[in-house]
Amino acid sequence: MRVCDIGERGLLERLHRFCPTGVVGDDAAVLSFPTFHQLVVTTDTLVDGVHFSPATTNAEDAGWRAVAANLSDLASMGAFPIGITVSLGLPGETPVQWVEGLYRGMKDCLDRFETTIVGGDLCKSPVVSVSITAFGRVKPDSIIRRSQAKPGDSIVVTGVHGASRGGLELLLNPETGQTLSPQQRDRLIRAHQRPMPRVDAIAALWEACDGEMRVAGMDSSDGLADAAVQISRESGVAAQLWLERLPIASELSAMVSQETARQWTLYGGEDFELVLCLPPESARRFVSQVAGASVVGEIVDGEGAWLVDGDAREPLTMQGGFQHFKGEA
Amino acid sequence: MRVCDIGERGLLERLHRFCPTGVVGDDAAVLSFPTFHQLVVTTDTLVDGVHFSPATTNAEDAGWRAVAANLSDLASMGAFPIGITVSLGLPGETPVQWVEGLYRGMKDCLDRFETTIVGGDLCKSPVVSVSITAFGRVKPDSIIRRSQAKPGDSIVVTGVHGASRGGLELLLNPETGQTLSPQQRDRLIRAHQRPMPRVDAIAALWEACDGEMRVAGMDSSDGLADAAVQISRESGVAAQLWLERLPIASELSAMVSQETARQWTLYGGEDFELVLCLPPESARRFVSQVAGASVVGEIVDGEGAWLVDGDAREPLTMQGGFQHFKGEA
Repeated sequence: MRVCDIGERGLLERLHRFCPTGVVGDDAAVLSFPTFHQLVVTTDTLVDGVHFSPATTNAEDAGWRAVAANLSDLASMGAFPIGITVSLGLPGETPVQWVEGLYRGMKDCLDRFETTIVGGDLCKSPVVSVSITAFGRVKPDSIIRRSQAKPGDSIVVTGVHGASRGGLELLLNPETGQTLSPQQRDRLIRAHQRPMPRVDAIAALWEACDGEMRVAGMDSSDGLADAAVQISRESGVAAQLWLERLPIASELSAMVSQETARQWTLYGGEDFELVLCLPPESARRFVSQVAGASVVGEIVDGEGAWLVDGDAREPLTMQGGFQHFKGEA
Repeated sequence: MRVCDIGERGLLERLHRFCPTGVVGDDAAVLSFPTFHQLVVTTDTLVDGVHFSPATTNAEDAGWRAVAANLSDLASMGAFPIGITVSLGLPGETPVQWVEGLYRGMKDCLDRFETTIVGGDLCKSPVVSVSITAFGRVKPDSIIRRSQAKPGDSIVVTGVHGASRGGLELLLNPETGQTLSPQQRDRLIRAHQRPMPRVDAIAALWEACDGEMRVAGMDSSDGLADAAVQISRESGVAAQLWLERLPIASELSAMVSQETARQWTLYGGEDFELVLCLPPESARRFVSQVAGASVVGEIVDGEGAWLVDGDAREPLTMQGGFQHFKGEA
């Protein structure tokens, strides 16, 4: 059954099952909003053939990843999610099953954080596109910004990196996983297909800070190195990552060379962990409370982002970053 | 100059000129939100070739209309706008000038309501798409819903209808405008290209209601008849529009037959006026305060939406409505 077989109304009826009752029916959704909070908003579009393909991407995973990326953007500002809207562009020949799978994947991810789809829009399009806008709430004194790192801060990550890149490699070239156990393979693939936004780390963070609320940071969706570069630039400081403390996903050492494992850890991207800068004492409390979190470097006077090995250091770049359009017509 | 000539960063730099300083830089935007209000959210996607075309639609007008449609959805819930996000999908060969024109048109419309673009996303896409999500604020006791019309209510519109349809006709078939003065032509075309969301009417509405806050309604973006049908269905009442009080745009009588003028008024759509149901005394106060507003009918016991002429009545349908996908692959 294709979308053009049941029409817009037929599709809407099916998709309403994934939304809370009472939300849909008017031109817009109404959400209650707590007092003394600020509204945090982020938006993201995925396009068939650019970010995913119904031909090769499982619909559920595409939905999960789309939601996870947006919730991670909220978490990277210190915000808790309160809802999302979804705008779908669909060719008439899109299978209804694919669209339902997409919504199922989105709902699966939202359910983990007690959040829902509060509204949306369907329209005809020559290519599948999924635009999500996510809303969150944050207290004004609890906002995480890239610009507020200070010399002396520890740099903390909420988990290992490079796993998503490793999972992608296994999906593209399964033979590269011959040296891995089935469990190791599954963990890497799952890291790629079902990344978990670190909303859970926000509550632990404020507990660890115990009133000292200045935390700088962002998520590592574009890579750990990219996060270090962005934070150093926005804060006017230097960010140093320690080579011996690089948060390399353990599975990678059984799969690729140490050099490749480091590259993927720094530049792989899409791990959706948080990269946070906070005073050392708070950082110690935080990593003791959040499984998988670790201190990986420090903020010092100066500029740029660096990988430090004893007395030697080399610059981190945004080379792994993904710049759309440039040089392509 | 094309988008692929300057890349994502080059384009972002140019587009930041249309956004307030300080908003962009982090993963998400932070907005202050007033206490004791609820958050209203609406979203809408326009796709090249379906809703507009860079080849035939002026970029500024496409931007204005995209914003106007979203702000109208907020107004139709009784909400004042506080910001929008914009997700753009662009082919690499899109002229940079077109994208800047789009943003200029969006900003023009937002400026009228002291609202801004607070965030967005750019991505490569085989087709131009513009996804807007708009956020508004409303006090819980001031929400307008389709479902709360009651027998005895007057039906009020905030302005004339059919003008946008007339303007479209003039753009498609200029020769149909030979009987119009240049001023009449301009007014109709402007109604189509630069529709004005009726945010202004919300403040007047609450003043007219003077504490009696039960107002049902929606906007007439899909046509006046469609609004009457939707309100009657959601409220479980009958909506009667009076033939002799149909809010026909005066220019239409100089352009088309009376029958066509009525059709366009009822089914033309895209006038973006508000269709409101409220007690007769409040309705009288409201139309005396809002230029162009008028009482066009009443809510009675029963069901369905009707066009009433003396003792005769004929049913209004959603025939002019626009259903995507159905029957098209």
